[in-house]
Amino acid sequence: MKTYSVAILGATGMVGQHYIKMLYRHPWFRIAALTGKESVGRKYVEAVRGEAPEPPKEIAEMEVLPTDPKKVDADFVFSCLPTEAAREAEPKFAEAGFPVFSDAAAYRMEGDVPLIVPEINPEHLNMVHIQRKKRGWEGYIVTTPNCTTVGLVLPLQPLKQSLGVKKVIVTTMQAVSGAGYPGVASLSILGNVIPYISGEERKVETEAAKILGRYGDGRFIYDSVEVYATCTRVPTLDGHMESIYLETEKPADEETVAELLAEYVSLPQELNLPTAPARPIVVRREPDRPQTRIDVDAGTVPGMSVSVGRIRVNGEKVRFISLSHNLIRGAAGGTILTAEVARHMGLLGE
Amino acid sequence: MKTYSVAILGATGMVGQHYIKMLYRHPWFRIAALTGKESVGRKYVEAVRGEAPEPPKEIAEMEVLPTDPKKVDADFVFSCLPTEAAREAEPKFAEAGFPVFSDAAAYRMEGDVPLIVPEINPEHLNMVHIQRKKRGWEGYIVTTPNCTTVGLVLPLQPLKQSLGVKKVIVTTMQAVSGAGYPGVASLSILGNVIPYISGEERKVETEAAKILGRYGDGRFIYDSVEVYATCTRVPTLDGHMESIYLETEKPADEETVAELLAEYVSLPQELNLPTAPARPIVVRREPDRPQTRIDVDAGTVPGMSVSVGRIRVNGEKVRFISLSHNLIRGAAGGTILTAEVARHMGLLGE
Amino acid sequence: MKTYSVAILGATGMVGQHYIKMLYRHPWFRIAALTGKESVGRKYVEAVRGEAPEPPKEIAEMEVLPTDPKKVDADFVFSCLPTEAAREAEPKFAEAGFPVFSDAAAYRMEGDVPLIVPEINPEHLNMVHIQRKKRGWEGYIVTTPNCTTVGLVLPLQPLKQSLGVKKVIVTTMQAVSGAGYPGVASLSILGNVIPYISGEERKVETEAAKILGRYGDGRFIYDSVEVYATCTRVPTLDGHMESIYLETEKPADEETVAELLAEYVSLPQELNLPTAPARPIVVRREPDRPQTRIDVDAGTVPGMSVSVGRIRVNGEKVRFISLSHNLIRGAAGGTILTAEVARHMGLLGE
Amino acid sequence: MKTYSVAILGATGMVGQHYIKMLYRHPWFRIAALTGKESVGRKYVEAVRGEAPEPPKEIAEMEVLPTDPKKVDADFVFSCLPTEAAREAEPKFAEAGFPVFSDAAAYRMEGDVPLIVPEINPEHLNMVHIQRKKRGWEGYIVTTPNCTTVGLVLPLQPLKQSLGVKKVIVTTMQAVSGAGYPGVASLSILGNVIPYISGEERKVETEAAKILGRYGDGRFIYDSVEVYATCTRVPTLDGHMESIYLETEKPADEETVAELLAEYVSLPQELNLPTAPARPIVVRREPDRPQTRIDVDAGTVPGMSVSVGRIRVNGEKVRFISLSHNLIRGAAGGTILTAEVARHMGLLGE
Repeated sequence: MKTYSVAILGATGMVGQHYIKMLYRHPWFRIAALTGKESVGRKYVEAVRGEAPEPPKEIAEMEVLPTDPKKVDADFVFSCLPTEAAREAEPKFAEAGFPVFSDAAAYRMEGDVPLIVPEINPEHLNMVHIQRKKRGWEGYIVTTPNCTTVGLVLPLQPLKQSLGVKKVIVTTMQAVSGAGYPGVASLSILGNVIPYISGEERKVETEAAKILGRYGDGRFIYDSVEVYATCTRVPTLDGHMESIYLETEKPADEETVAELLAEYVSLPQELNLPTAPARPIVVRREPDRPQTRIDVDAGTVPGMSVSVGRIRVNGEKVRFISLSHNLIRGAAGGTILTAEVARHMGLLGE
Repeated sequence: MKTYSVAILGATGMVGQHYIKMLYRHPWFRIAALTGKESVGRKYVEAVRGEAPEPPKEIAEMEVLPTDPKKVDADFVFSCLPTEAAREAEPKFAEAGFPVFSDAAAYRMEGDVPLIVPEINPEHLNMVHIQRKKRGWEGYIVTTPNCTTVGLVLPLQPLKQSLGVKKVIVTTMQAVSGAGYPGVASLSILGNVIPYISGEERKVETEAAKILGRYGDGRFIYDSVEVYATCTRVPTLDGHMESIYLETEKPADEETVAELLAEYVSLPQELNLPTAPARPIVVRREPDRPQTRIDVDAGTVPGMSVSVGRIRVNGEKVRFISLSHNLIRGAAGGTILTAEVARHMGLLGE
Repeated sequence: MKTYSVAILGATGMVGQHYIKMLYRHPWFRIAALTGKESVGRKYVEAVRGEAPEPPKEIAEMEVLPTDPKKVDADFVFSCLPTEAAREAEPKFAEAGFPVFSDAAAYRMEGDVPLIVPEINPEHLNMVHIQRKKRGWEGYIVTTPNCTTVGLVLPLQPLKQSLGVKKVIVTTMQAVSGAGYPGVASLSILGNVIPYISGEERKVETEAAKILGRYGDGRFIYDSVEVYATCTRVPTLDGHMESIYLETEKPADEETVAELLAEYVSLPQELNLPTAPARPIVVRREPDRPQTRIDVDAGTVPGMSVSVGRIRVNGEKVRFISLSHNLIRGAAGGTILTAEVARHMGLLGE
Repeated sequence: MKTYSVAILGATGMVGQHYIKMLYRHPWFRIAALTGKESVGRKYVEAVRGEAPEPPKEIAEMEVLPTDPKKVDADFVFSCLPTEAAREAEPKFAEAGFPVFSDAAAYRMEGDVPLIVPEINPEHLNMVHIQRKKRGWEGYIVTTPNCTTVGLVLPLQPLKQSLGVKKVIVTTMQAVSGAGYPGVASLSILGNVIPYISGEERKVETEAAKILGRYGDGRFIYDSVEVYATCTRVPTLDGHMESIYLETEKPADEETVAELLAEYVSLPQELNLPTAPARPIVVRREPDRPQTRIDVDAGTVPGMSVSVGRIRVNGEKVRFISLSHNLIRGAAGGTILTAEVARHMGLLGE
């Protein structure tokens, strides 16, 4: 099978470091280029920001390139650019013929851009054919959702399929790494909770309806679920916890909900994709789990499973706690898994 | 006016220290006795657990007494005993003629025991007459709610009065001081969220209906509001934050909700009681407030006001953040204010 | 007595907020002007960075002025500018006739600039006469030391006077507020210790010798004490702890050292200056004190006393823990007290 | 080669969990028994305290045995009992014929008990022959030092060998896991530094002299190095940082010190023992490393190398930062490596 060379756009940030860690020994994809901004021309190891462990030696020595399709040689690209940089650069790469798999927010809600959680809506990827035609691009843009959205929609999907979901009220407790580096000042968050993350609630509320919706007649039909989100920042490092309340169409009980979640598998598991965890949802039965620090790396592929616990059901009212790794399932890992599905669907060429 | 001598039962814990701080210069109440358990016979300053600032000199030198009505000389008592100790000791004190004002959980849900938030249901105090008769006690027991309940019901009350409240979904982010000392191990909570506090959710759900209910025909008629709570522990020191979603009977808008909350005053304010804050609810208009560490001491009587912010309204769906000081409004301060109302109602004698 | 109008240069940062808090009700000094940089022209309340409590109303409404002597009308100025801004602005203010009391690092080690800890070397203030003549300034610059230096030299001074001090080895554990706002990223410091603060160790080592030295013949004669410092950052909010080991010329015992420290008073105490704490050093006898969070506000003027504990003496080897408030005694408070001494010495005019 | 069956005494605590993790796939040693106290008779997975990841399945199912030599079947035992329990149990096991490798404090300073850091003083193990004869035991007790001692003496040893070391002043910043579970209350340490750990300083000061000393004529001759320690607790999870100042006999420079540390290897490396890291000391050249959270797992065997950085040398005055994993190199790992050396020396039988 072909090995694909990939470029990582915006590789020097927190998420970029996780792309490198997950792609370094990837069986299909090979890191061919890293791009940055202020650090162009420097070695990657000198450009990297934040507190990550040292990159592997050959990656450390790579030169940081400008985020310019003319300077990048790769079969396709991953983008973890900041929103504004993504808005400018991603169409240029798509126009220049690159498939772009992006966890940036810039194009998620565009009518012709797939927003993918590989277990939930892989068929949305077919939109790229329409996108290419409409935009006259040789390449295309595929996006993955906000880190907080993933921890919500993954457990929602099996419940929606079996019980129907009408309304969701979610409060998040998000880790500081979600804000990147330097991100949240220590003076702001030590011993504190900040009940506000700019733009986050709207993202969760709108993205969920798109991901859970259908793809038909060349367009996305949004799901009718109502989502009311409140997003807070807490002094944890990695891992977004979500306290989820939802109202279902059919009544259930705790055991049913637990089984629906624990047994949920989908296309990435059926295809046994390299970055697919054996179980996208790990159900915890202990009274006090999942916990952010302890369970953030859950899954056979660490950080790729969402942990769910504290399932409580009163008829149509279902409550549980969800925990997902914001930089892995919520960013680098989710996007890599999306590219793996795309390869399976023939969207990366042979 | 008479000065009342008071005893504090269980005075050596975290809440006991706050009672002392708030009673030390109280215009009506004078600390006459402190009780403990392991520390009986020692000086208070040597018995006190935890990390509080030093008590005033004359309090520091007081001898810790056993929690025994025969050993205590006072006009009435405050109890911040642990639940099991309260279950045993409080009836003995009531039988021995002491009015007992307790923030312990033991008797809160008894059919003849008032559960008081002074701004909301002071008229429930009249139940003590029935309680005394029924139990054959010369004294009585009055309780105040769980620290988490207070931060919920205080903002609920004005909304209920004007808009009607049908259903409440609340997720809490509670400080470690709520678990007392030593309480939560540092290994358990540093950089972590624990989405479980034993028994807490049931307390919030049942206590709210009692407090918001009516007192009539010699019994408590519970409010019909449905409450669904999820309680978590976060690495903050003092102050319980609550993310509250509620559905009202009448639609509203953000300005209306903000005004209802900001302008809410009740009996303690009208009587200008010593421990009553000028405003029981402080409304924050900034996008990112209240924050736990910064706003926990809000109010003209520090820690006695609940801070509310991030008000978002969609028709009948109302969301906001509430923050209250778990040791002050949620324990010592709320109970002292209850005793002040009781004095006004003549329940402490002349 | 005259009331002096003062300007605060760089008033919008963390230290500036402490100047305002301490000057707001000051009996001699009245806040007349606040300067800033990006925020020039805005109201102070909108310009202020960081997490401080709200400023008093009339301060909140003041317009932020540019840091330009022509735009500032005041009897003298306090400067808490960043080093580079201080290097540029402070001489302009001195030239324009303003006495400048600065906690910035820019001119601390200049040969004609006093570096003052009011209890230790107030007589160094006389250097301003030489400074004015030499530089042809109508005003002058007086500096106060790095926040870490203060917590070292204050307890050193009484020991030096009575026992002689030859060598000091100090390891600091410094709070994040010492880095200003936004300062240290939460990702960098949560659950971590960073054993490095750029430039800090050299400051402590050189400033101590100047402060503890003599002023004679129109010049500063440095003290011969050797100081070896290691400075670390820990996840605390306010308060720099220092683990100090020193070798004295004469042997001592623990009680002697404790008494020398506890009984130490100096000119600010003798003059009963408004910002002088009754005791510059508070000695703690408990085995586990001082602690950063608990003892940071020690003193009759909160934050103006250095707490010392864990005194251990083996002949000429003396060990103890020192804790000082980096924003108060180590910045705003120490500089205000210096200005109070200067007024007493007639250096502010009548 | 023989596989040895081992028992872990006190297996349910924090250190016990690390023994299990490190022994589970050990090439020479096989976990045969786990002992506890309150949890005797329960499955290990139900008995384990604290916050560790789940043990492997066959360990999880093992029954917790009483700490009684009659109930334990093993070739030798590891002990991570609390001090008082160790004082009672370890001699019983030694008397019953078990070699006991203990990280408990009870017998470290006994005249006939080896206190081993495998790289530094493996020859001290020969004392067990005298110990057995003197005490009439078939087995014996070998101890390993306090977790804080290890991070000091490992870098001291190569400097002592080449430069001579006369005096050491050390300030530690120790993680909460060093106090076990539940250990330090979160209320005590959140946003705080506690400059005191009961008994710790004396341990560091006395153990260092024994470990760095010689074994000759059947007795331990203590090294003459003077150690002055100050031990503090900081809000980190794992990893004890130490700020070390020492005075050498010969002057040096930074490069020499860095090389002496970086190139230091000893018997465990020469024997290529299973738990020996390639380098016992990892030297960091960055200005701000090692950092507790980032570097705690340094080494080819994670947690078995001490990280050293910030080397500063002024003639005979040498300063540096040391960081070691208190539960691995400072407890379980160091003791396992000691047993590996003992096996090499024939002390475990064939």
